[in-house]
Amino acid sequence: MSLTSSESTAVTTATLPPPGTPDIEIARAVQPQSILLLAQQRLGLAADSLIPFGHYKAKLDTRHVGPVDPASFGRLVLVTAITPTPAGEGKTTTSVGLNDGFNQLGVRSSVCLREPSLGPCFGMKGGAAGGGRAQVIPMEDINLHFNGDFHAITAAHNLLASILDNHIHWGNEAGLDPRHVYWRRVLDLNDRALRNTIVGLGGSAHGLPRETGFDITVASEIMAILCMADDLTDLRQRLGRIIVGRRHDHTPVTVSDLGVEGALAILLRDALQPNLVQSLEHNPVFIHGGPFANIAHGCNSVMATRYALSLNDVVVTEAGFGADLGAEKFIDIKCRQSGLSPDAVVLVCTVRALKMQGGMRKVDLARPDLAALHEGAANLERHILNLRQFGLTPVVSINRFPTDAEEELIAIQAICRELGVNAVVANHWALGGAGATDLAQAVLDQMAEGSPEVQPLYPDHWTLVEKIETIASRLYHAGDVAFSADARRQLEEYQQLGFGHLPVCIAKTQYSFSADPKLRGAPSGHTLPVREVRLSAGAGFVVAVCGDIMTMPGLPRRPAALDMGLNAEGDVYGLV
Amino acid sequence: MSLTSSESTAVTTATLPPPGTPDIEIARAVQPQSILLLAQQRLGLAADSLIPFGHYKAKLDTRHVGPVDPASFGRLVLVTAITPTPAGEGKTTTSVGLNDGFNQLGVRSSVCLREPSLGPCFGMKGGAAGGGRAQVIPMEDINLHFNGDFHAITAAHNLLASILDNHIHWGNEAGLDPRHVYWRRVLDLNDRALRNTIVGLGGSAHGLPRETGFDITVASEIMAILCMADDLTDLRQRLGRIIVGRRHDHTPVTVSDLGVEGALAILLRDALQPNLVQSLEHNPVFIHGGPFANIAHGCNSVMATRYALSLNDVVVTEAGFGADLGAEKFIDIKCRQSGLSPDAVVLVCTVRALKMQGGMRKVDLARPDLAALHEGAANLERHILNLRQFGLTPVVSINRFPTDAEEELIAIQAICRELGVNAVVANHWALGGAGATDLAQAVLDQMAEGSPEVQPLYPDHWTLVEKIETIASRLYHAGDVAFSADARRQLEEYQQLGFGHLPVCIAKTQYSFSADPKLRGAPSGHTLPVREVRLSAGAGFVVAVCGDIMTMPGLPRRPAALDMGLNAEGDVYGLV
Repeated sequence: MSLTSSESTAVTTATLPPPGTPDIEIARAVQPQSILLLAQQRLGLAADSLIPFGHYKAKLDTRHVGPVDPASFGRLVLVTAITPTPAGEGKTTTSVGLNDGFNQLGVRSSVCLREPSLGPCFGMKGGAAGGGRAQVIPMEDINLHFNGDFHAITAAHNLLASILDNHIHWGNEAGLDPRHVYWRRVLDLNDRALRNTIVGLGGSAHGLPRETGFDITVASEIMAILCMADDLTDLRQRLGRIIVGRRHDHTPVTVSDLGVEGALAILLRDALQPNLVQSLEHNPVFIHGGPFANIAHGCNSVMATRYALSLNDVVVTEAGFGADLGAEKFIDIKCRQSGLSPDAVVLVCTVRALKMQGGMRKVDLARPDLAALHEGAANLERHILNLRQFGLTPVVSINRFPTDAEEELIAIQAICRELGVNAVVANHWALGGAGATDLAQAVLDQMAEGSPEVQPLYPDHWTLVEKIETIASRLYHAGDVAFSADARRQLEEYQQLGFGHLPVCIAKTQYSFSADPKLRGAPSGHTLPVREVRLSAGAGFVVAVCGDIMTMPGLPRRPAALDMGLNAEGDVYGLV
Repeated sequence: MSLTSSESTAVTTATLPPPGTPDIEIARAVQPQSILLLAQQRLGLAADSLIPFGHYKAKLDTRHVGPVDPASFGRLVLVTAITPTPAGEGKTTTSVGLNDGFNQLGVRSSVCLREPSLGPCFGMKGGAAGGGRAQVIPMEDINLHFNGDFHAITAAHNLLASILDNHIHWGNEAGLDPRHVYWRRVLDLNDRALRNTIVGLGGSAHGLPRETGFDITVASEIMAILCMADDLTDLRQRLGRIIVGRRHDHTPVTVSDLGVEGALAILLRDALQPNLVQSLEHNPVFIHGGPFANIAHGCNSVMATRYALSLNDVVVTEAGFGADLGAEKFIDIKCRQSGLSPDAVVLVCTVRALKMQGGMRKVDLARPDLAALHEGAANLERHILNLRQFGLTPVVSINRFPTDAEEELIAIQAICRELGVNAVVANHWALGGAGATDLAQAVLDQMAEGSPEVQPLYPDHWTLVEKIETIASRLYHAGDVAFSADARRQLEEYQQLGFGHLPVCIAKTQYSFSADPKLRGAPSGHTLPVREVRLSAGAGFVVAVCGDIMTMPGLPRRPAALDMGLNAEGDVYGLV
């Protein structure tokens, strides 16, 4: 077991390969510390409070640690971003770098991230554990299998599906209408051929033929539940509340009706324990849960955030997509249900992304263009104003790229200054934590001025329709919401069934404030089309589907998998 | 971390709940030792030679330990059984008890077992880690997720399926005939509704519609490959040789043709490392791999067996089903490919099972019946004679049940004595290792007489048809083999494609020497119907399917899952 002492931090960082080296090579250049030692030295956790997975990964044994005391919580810093573009914003990289920055300033800090999915890893983009000198290690393990959490969710989800089809096969005592089974199956893969399937073929010994399909595991309601659960008891109760389908009389059939929430909880017992790893600078990183940011709330687990807050003075966390979706769901869903509340928010932007928001093409982004930048800054401004509606004034982090011109960085800072917002250039990608100390200091300074009074956008007692309309008008600046007949009927049904008090989770394109991914910048007056509504009774929200959303991705013509392998030493290559 | 010293063994065993207590309660009554400490004290392995998974499970880090030297190998004891009946034989329980028995005699011994599947666990039978006082712990962890091996195989298998459908979707460069794709998908579940499916529905954006289905993960060729692989390099090469389908001109399409063996190997890298746990008496237990005993060879991994042999004086291992299937495949497939060879074989029987072989009904088994016992002993005799054809004289282990009459035990011993075979009553279920020291001593005595000259039943160069006919006539006492027209055509095709040198793997009912599960005892002159033949080019054998075999089980009317859950302390109940 390697017991590298923490004094070696400076050495390892100084000897890292230069910026621009592939992420995996930078990650490999750092010898991780023993995770048990790191947990002991940095979080004060004894070895029996951890469940080791190899020498460099562990799960927190929350049964051993015991419940947390909110009175002891550190301060929570949410990292969110402007509307994403193909230029890349670097939200995870900023979260990791900011945490390293806090630690460089001597602040006891951890970062809470979401777990990556295997699907995209073998499809388009390779790994997802930060980039440059702001990465989490061991990078391959985090991208592959990572302590078995997603596999456990896949197993639990599909066990429920098999129990359900088995129930119908043996006589359907619960009276499920086989044409209205909502529960599909999942795999942690990109597999378009599984989107629409017929199962139960081959004769009466092999079940009842019916149409169904598979989603990617991160789209499972069980993933969202795992991320929302307070503890094992709450997990089990939430699992029992999942609605799997309906009867002929339209009444919902739940997991409790099938009696299988206990077996699902067994499969998820270990997965519910938060995972602990480290950054390249050997700072603690919690990575736990990874719900979709469209049909779910897109944040890491409540349990990881709470335990991290109980063990640190500052905790950095991120939310999926841009602030219109990610920060909104963080506050209106995760914070509402858990009682958590951010003490500060960092809004990530880049020169490149703002120029794309201003109409530039991706191939031209290396060229300085202050006009495009100013045009695109409308997007940044909208996000800043939106965050203020929640009672939060963001610190803007300009995630520096090598092609950025000095006058472009200055221009963004000037725009923010006019809005009364502090904007800091962050260079963790090239410099690690040392590149993010200005940002970390700016966040500390702002928090020193006092805690924000954060409030959700709407109260529980508003109707589901009112909640959707409020998000659309106040955050998206939509002129109108167009509910399909189906959506309106479903919303009325959910309201009648007693689910009207739930928050709503908007599923729409992340590429625009509108439902049209081509509308960049800060569009106004558009119509938000609510096509369909889904109830996630276990996770505790109602999903409003606006436009097309894909819950099972496909692979590209040439999947990244084709360029991957193991070298003679058994080390992974091709995972970028 | 618990660092229970090894001296506590006697104490913990003595204070165990009495025989007949549910397995899970006996298992819970024992505090496991730290697996790192056990590996150090009992196997001489330093902590950095192990990858811990929690405190009581680990994987052997074979990259760190380095390659094994066959010159240093201990002796290998194979545990096999008579033809199984619903009465139960207790092969795993005997393997665990025998290993505890060896250790009670002061022999440095480990046992190598197969990993249980999640499917049956939630269906019919609960867990699979021995029984009574001959169990492996931590029992719940072994039955659930166990270090992620099966999940990794599921992911790799389904990644290949998605790459394949994606390949067809994007133009089918390799020229696969979509009507002849052999590669299905897998889940580690019992789910009859997935046996026969149509995928790719919903229009051209969602792939090509075609018929396919799902098997249980243990039936995956990748499971068999993992169990046969010498090392990571061999694993990758075997993965590349998998035949996924054929072209319109009937030529095979392999994984290498699709270029994805590297990505599959990445997913399987950790799963290839053998798992180490412990018995109730804190003796080392390797549990690794779990291929189906019908369409695959049904033994634990070659890697686990080899590393166990390199670290012990004696290694106990088991093979699936009865000796006609399990021991035959162990020698003709696993030993042939790996160069391993058993130094002794233990043939497990029970009074109850022999009486069922003699025609008794299960409900009557508690009643002594020497006539039925003598009638059923024909089955035991056939297995003894069969094992002699491989050059092996078994030690018969009579796995004692509380209902056994003394004269019945004596009768079996007398029958064996006439055949020149030693039969020992073993009572590990009630007494742990102390109940199996007689058996262990008998095995040691026999090995002291010299090594057997073990030979496979047929040489490589015989044709596939000759190999099948030899197994049928010499082991099953079949009068004839009836090849279907399809089977005969496929065998000729495989012979022409250059796969004639491979061993054959018979897939037939485990409940009879014949293909008819109702023919108990020792039937002769029956016809073996070979319905279909499948090529497992990566695993390295040709499967001859005789009669119906099920590669995706279904759940019963009332699945075991419905009675499972977690109690207030978060402990599992209902996993029996």
